[in-house]
Amino acid sequence: MADKRILSGMRPTGKLHIGHYVGALENWVKLQHQYQSFYLIADYHVLTTNLDTSDIFDNSIQMLIDWLAAGLDPVKSPMFRQSQIKQHTELHLIFSMLITVNRLERNPTLKDQIRDLNIENVIYGHLGYPVLQTADILLYKGNFVPVGEDQVPHIEISREIARRFNNQYGEVFPEPEPLLTKFARLQGLDGNAKMSKSLGNTILLSDDPDTIKNKLRKAVTDPNKIRKGDPGNPDICLVFSYHKKFNPDEVAEIDKNCRSGALGCVDCKMNCAAKISSFLEPVREKRKYYEDRMNEVLDILHDGENRARAFAEQTMSEVHEKMRLG
Amino acid sequence: MADKRILSGMRPTGKLHIGHYVGALENWVKLQHQYQSFYLIADYHVLTTNLDTSDIFDNSIQMLIDWLAAGLDPVKSPMFRQSQIKQHTELHLIFSMLITVNRLERNPTLKDQIRDLNIENVIYGHLGYPVLQTADILLYKGNFVPVGEDQVPHIEISREIARRFNNQYGEVFPEPEPLLTKFARLQGLDGNAKMSKSLGNTILLSDDPDTIKNKLRKAVTDPNKIRKGDPGNPDICLVFSYHKKFNPDEVAEIDKNCRSGALGCVDCKMNCAAKISSFLEPVREKRKYYEDRMNEVLDILHDGENRARAFAEQTMSEVHEKMRLG
Ligand code: SF4
Ligand code: SF4
Repeated sequence: MADKRILSGMRPTGKLHIGHYVGALENWVKLQHQYQSFYLIADYHVLTTNLDTSDIFDNSIQMLIDWLAAGLDPVKSPMFRQSQIKQHTELHLIFSMLITVNRLERNPTLKDQIRDLNIENVIYGHLGYPVLQTADILLYKGNFVPVGEDQVPHIEISREIARRFNNQYGEVFPEPEPLLTKFARLQGLDGNAKMSKSLGNTILLSDDPDTIKNKLRKAVTDPNKIRKGDPGNPDICLVFSYHKKFNPDEVAEIDKNCRSGALGCVDCKMNCAAKISSFLEPVREKRKYYEDRMNEVLDILHDGENRARAFAEQTMSEVHEKMRLG
Repeated sequence: MADKRILSGMRPTGKLHIGHYVGALENWVKLQHQYQSFYLIADYHVLTTNLDTSDIFDNSIQMLIDWLAAGLDPVKSPMFRQSQIKQHTELHLIFSMLITVNRLERNPTLKDQIRDLNIENVIYGHLGYPVLQTADILLYKGNFVPVGEDQVPHIEISREIARRFNNQYGEVFPEPEPLLTKFARLQGLDGNAKMSKSLGNTILLSDDPDTIKNKLRKAVTDPNKIRKGDPGNPDICLVFSYHKKFNPDEVAEIDKNCRSGALGCVDCKMNCAAKISSFLEPVREKRKYYEDRMNEVLDILHDGENRARAFAEQTMSEVHEKMRLG
């Protein structure tokens, strides 16, 4: 499998939280040993829903540090910003000729975004989001893309575009396949199904133990369990869902003692906070290492961008040759 | 005015005809002395309506030779292919975030094309044609764009995008203005309002005198004038419209003799063919010069591409800086 490639990407929105870790990063760390990986900092994608780019560079660097801290190996796999590799935009333009407006308008993820963000007039580049994503994947001839369920329709568009290009101009691209992430989403601290920066309900990978304690203190639990002694229902308790992920050994015991009332929520939360803290300790340590060596971080980024660009150039010269653009 | 820039472009569809000359090239030749000019071979634009790119390189070279033969000065102004300067696609992507789908769908030229070409499902990149054209213009900070009436709505879109970018990120781009070509369109040899390769009703800049004679022989005239002696109406005669352009000195006399019947159509046509031939003689000669020196043509192209790229790079580094993309 080591000759197969995956393209993994995130939008740079700043420091990552444990939801990113559980939902993606942890998986990426494993996958880097099985596939040739490319890690994309999708800064242009941010523009589809937010034109303010003033923090985009800082956010990209913070995300890169989190990637490194979480265990992604920059020697094994290049990490790079979309905006620094013009070939993304070049392939995007070519692919924009291979798909209809109707097809893009049928994209269910776009429909959800339009509803969630109350968008009245869709931006042209927002409609074309899956076209840019297709360029991101196929520029590196990605065979697999680790994604959540909601991204599967985009991969289907990528497969269509790859087929259409190959049929029209000759075989250049693989048809990429989704690699569904196995882990469920972590709920937010407020009980929201989604942990997200904009909802302010996250635990960051960079949070120190005190911060984590304070955040856990305010976390939502079984509302019927008011004080120690009251019997609780762990199945509807957010804190319990964190125990399952970060404290698997004690899950059975907590379940029992919560239901009997022997365990109080404050103790249970502090225990959970401690487990999350120790889980994050190596990440926090590595983070500190890189924060103190910003030049090393920038070197890693530039090296990754040079390597990605070299691959991208190779792909684009094949594309130009097949299209006989001269 | 020499510090103002114009961007002039054509799609490479092969050898040019006298309609191109009268409608655009002749004007460009004059404008090159008044403005800093950039001449774009818009090869990516061809894809919006035709995915077959097998002839695109040859067509680009033939068009370039016609430009040179018509008197455009490659030392004064760079001539270059869109596909060889990635910055076009980069700025295109950024601009695609600054305009809505609705706005592009209101483009009347697109509506005409959809009707004329019987398009059922608009291609995403076809809808975005004015966005790419905006990138073409603004990459070179074009102040003016020589266009026909039908292109004016596109320039309006370019002005909107320039304003939106400048407001969001800071002043980088001028708001380009259309420079309406003064000359009317030449009719085709079949009397069609438009001279066009696809209609097979053209006189090419490269046609030799015999070819021009043969083409004129079949040209449409006043249908009521069958033979010499019959009075004719030059106002409805295609050949007369060519005389106006290529034989202005004899127009009054031809008008008179056509109406009186003294002039026969065959003589009138052969006279017209001779005038067009001698008008095109210096173009044909220069064409021959370049056809015999293909290496020189390629050098001119590559030199133009290097110069255009250097300008484009400068613009894009301003764009990246203003957007703080890092
Ligand atoms: S004891 Fe623990 S699992 Fe039970 S409700 Fe309280 S926090 Fe949740
Ligand atoms: S004489 Fe000349 S102008 Fe008159 S109808 Fe014939 S071709 Fe036309």
